Amino acid sequence: MTTTQALLDSLLEHKSAINLATTGQKNQALEAMANQLEEQIDAILAANKLDMRAAKDSAISSVMLERLLLNEERVKDMAAGIRALIALPDPIGLVLEETTAANGMKISKRSIPFGLIGMIYESRPNVTSDVAALAIKSGNAVILRGGKEAFHSAQAIVTALKSGLSQAGIAPEVVELVQDTSRTSATELMTAKGKIDLLVPRGGAGLIHAVVENATVPVIETGTGICHVYVDKDADVAKALSIVVNAKTSRPSVCNSAEVLLVHEDIAKTFLPILEAHLAGQVELRADQPALSLFERAVPAGEDDFDTEFLDYILAVKVVKGVEEAVAHIGQHSTGHSEAIVTENDQAAHIFTQSVDSAAVYVNVSTRFTDGGQFGLGCELGISTQKMHARGPMGLREMTTYKYIITGDGQIRI
Amino acid sequence: MTTTQALLDSLLEHKSAINLATTGQKNQALEAMANQLEEQIDAILAANKLDMRAAKDSAISSVMLERLLLNEERVKDMAAGIRALIALPDPIGLVLEETTAANGMKISKRSIPFGLIGMIYESRPNVTSDVAALAIKSGNAVILRGGKEAFHSAQAIVTALKSGLSQAGIAPEVVELVQDTSRTSATELMTAKGKIDLLVPRGGAGLIHAVVENATVPVIETGTGICHVYVDKDADVAKALSIVVNAKTSRPSVCNSAEVLLVHEDIAKTFLPILEAHLAGQVELRADQPALSLFERAVPAGEDDFDTEFLDYILAVKVVKGVEEAVAHIGQHSTGHSEAIVTENDQAAHIFTQSVDSAAVYVNVSTRFTDGGQFGLGCELGISTQKMHARGPMGLREMTTYKYIITGDGQIRI
Repeated sequence: MTTTQALLDSLLEHKSAINLATTGQKNQALEAMANQLEEQIDAILAANKLDMRAAKDSAISSVMLERLLLNEERVKDMAAGIRALIALPDPIGLVLEETTAANGMKISKRSIPFGLIGMIYESRPNVTSDVAALAIKSGNAVILRGGKEAFHSAQAIVTALKSGLSQAGIAPEVVELVQDTSRTSATELMTAKGKIDLLVPRGGAGLIHAVVENATVPVIETGTGICHVYVDKDADVAKALSIVVNAKTSRPSVCNSAEVLLVHEDIAKTFLPILEAHLAGQVELRADQPALSLFERAVPAGEDDFDTEFLDYILAVKVVKGVEEAVAHIGQHSTGHSEAIVTENDQAAHIFTQSVDSAAVYVNVSTRFTDGGQFGLGCELGISTQKMHARGPMGLREMTTYKYIITGDGQIRI
Repeated sequence: MTTTQALLDSLLEHKSAINLATTGQKNQALEAMANQLEEQIDAILAANKLDMRAAKDSAISSVMLERLLLNEERVKDMAAGIRALIALPDPIGLVLEETTAANGMKISKRSIPFGLIGMIYESRPNVTSDVAALAIKSGNAVILRGGKEAFHSAQAIVTALKSGLSQAGIAPEVVELVQDTSRTSATELMTAKGKIDLLVPRGGAGLIHAVVENATVPVIETGTGICHVYVDKDADVAKALSIVVNAKTSRPSVCNSAEVLLVHEDIAKTFLPILEAHLAGQVELRADQPALSLFERAVPAGEDDFDTEFLDYILAVKVVKGVEEAVAHIGQHSTGHSEAIVTENDQAAHIFTQSVDSAAVYVNVSTRFTDGGQFGLGCELGISTQKMHARGPMGLREMTTYKYIITGDGQIRI
């Protein structure tokens, strides 16, 4: 087993092979990586079977099993995801700005890769290929540290991707999977100062908080979503119903699903009973006092229910006096991910979009759209909930930084 | 005395007054702030006298005294600096990207202020007005925590700036100076999670490291500069001489001055004796063995001399075999601030600019130009030495983030 430190040292030694690669080289590598995923599909599915068997033995939840599972279609989707990146423009080497100073020196601001990106994630095998492909297209070396449940699958996927890199003439040492899935390796990545240029944790709130709290390398916080839908007094009830049902029930386990419904007091009497009828016992409603009286089978909301990412068929419901109170509540309780207002009133929409301080703010649209694919980024590195560097879905551009190159003929500063 | 916590709470309460201000309102405020600095010049100079007297009593270095000193001209320069920002474009409210998805929803990515920016700095009084003015133009509330040596000066400056804000109809509570200059207040800012959106330390290496290590709020690391000049075998000797002398001696106390000279072995014999003659005893040369033999009065470089920001008339000198060794040395020892190559060889210049991983990479230009003013940003918030979010001199744009506003008519995700 290669130790994590040895992998880091090897990545530093080889990273320039991808940091300085041309667009053509990178796209060739992506094509070869996609081909190799398909060619090595048997090995990948066999490895996945090992992971699935171990997962079943350890009585993992059916949601986790579903995430972990690979089949022919899913591997082909991974390959298609890689090929989709080929068509996207290269984010590296762009001249972002260029000026010539009065003394004749030319100041050119150019986009460059970070260098080495680290990713700590959990059980979904497609994250392995998505992130490796995003790294290659954006010119970054990458060190992947997946969850132990998916280790064999990730290993087989990385083996295929490395074959593709070799075929395309790029050192396969620019993509590495950490071999040790204990906590130690996560800590080693978090503290690899001067080696890892950017570390992204992707997974549950516990994992993300641990990384944000303990890392000494630059981190982008992702994913935790306590998302709100506010139904204004001037909402179209049909749209409100459809958006709340979609935001809550279409995929409750993901970060862009809604956890909290805020409803204007003037429309609560009309809207809440209709909503309850449509949710038809599928969703547990946890309501504040005014809302409670309008539901038939809700339970009183507890102290923490407005600060919890349920990731389940549970919705906290609160009645508010207007858009200002909704904005204030969101300011206090949101994780800064995605929030929606449903209204036909332009002024209410304006106040909401101006004042809600989250990565994605929706007017008459479900929060479920906050996603790299939906935003046109191909796949995504993760969804940033911080304000520094990147916000919302992160794609190729968010994996770049820049430098200034200044050329002259002997200019000195007087 | 208002406590730091009370100031933070007040800033949160009032920040929307500046976060949502229009370009016209912000420019009016800047004009009034500049006017008030000039109108209150007597009070500012009187306050500065108090600081200067206390500084002299505590036997502070002449460099520090020079930094602390205000006079009529310097206050007028501060006002002029604020007025210069009026002419720059507003970085807020820009539509950075806009697309309409296949389902008809419009996705608009817009630049917005961070919200509340914190700055921890030391004794130069103009930082107080520069940073407050940058904050106002970029729509941010700001909490300033200056050094205790400059407290009275900073207080008088902030009083004037607040008068300007009031006159322009913007709540003066959006710019605050921390009243407590003990360590406690710095710690309070570093840990004001959920309140301060971005914290920038500006000053000595000790201050910056303390903030980077201990902050739980987002921080941008600034300023420490172990800057290198590499004189290639194909250098024009006259340019090399002029650049090295300028980079080392024009202002040794600032972060963009050079600390290390790397020189190609083929040119060392010619160049180093000429350099020594020109530095004429003004600069202490600390040389590796090969360089030592070419100087008359150098001392042997110690272990730490290639990892020290001298900020003084000291230069570490090392002979290298070529541009690759220079790049490797810089990769190991640089703080990622500014590095220069002197060469007439395009290929050497290309290797250097591609492979050196610093914020500013110069070809035949002195490192001393890494500066917000020189790069056309007006004044600067600081010089970032990190790769995330911002690199090099930070101006208005680097004080912004963005959000996605998505508008539709009931779109849900299927």
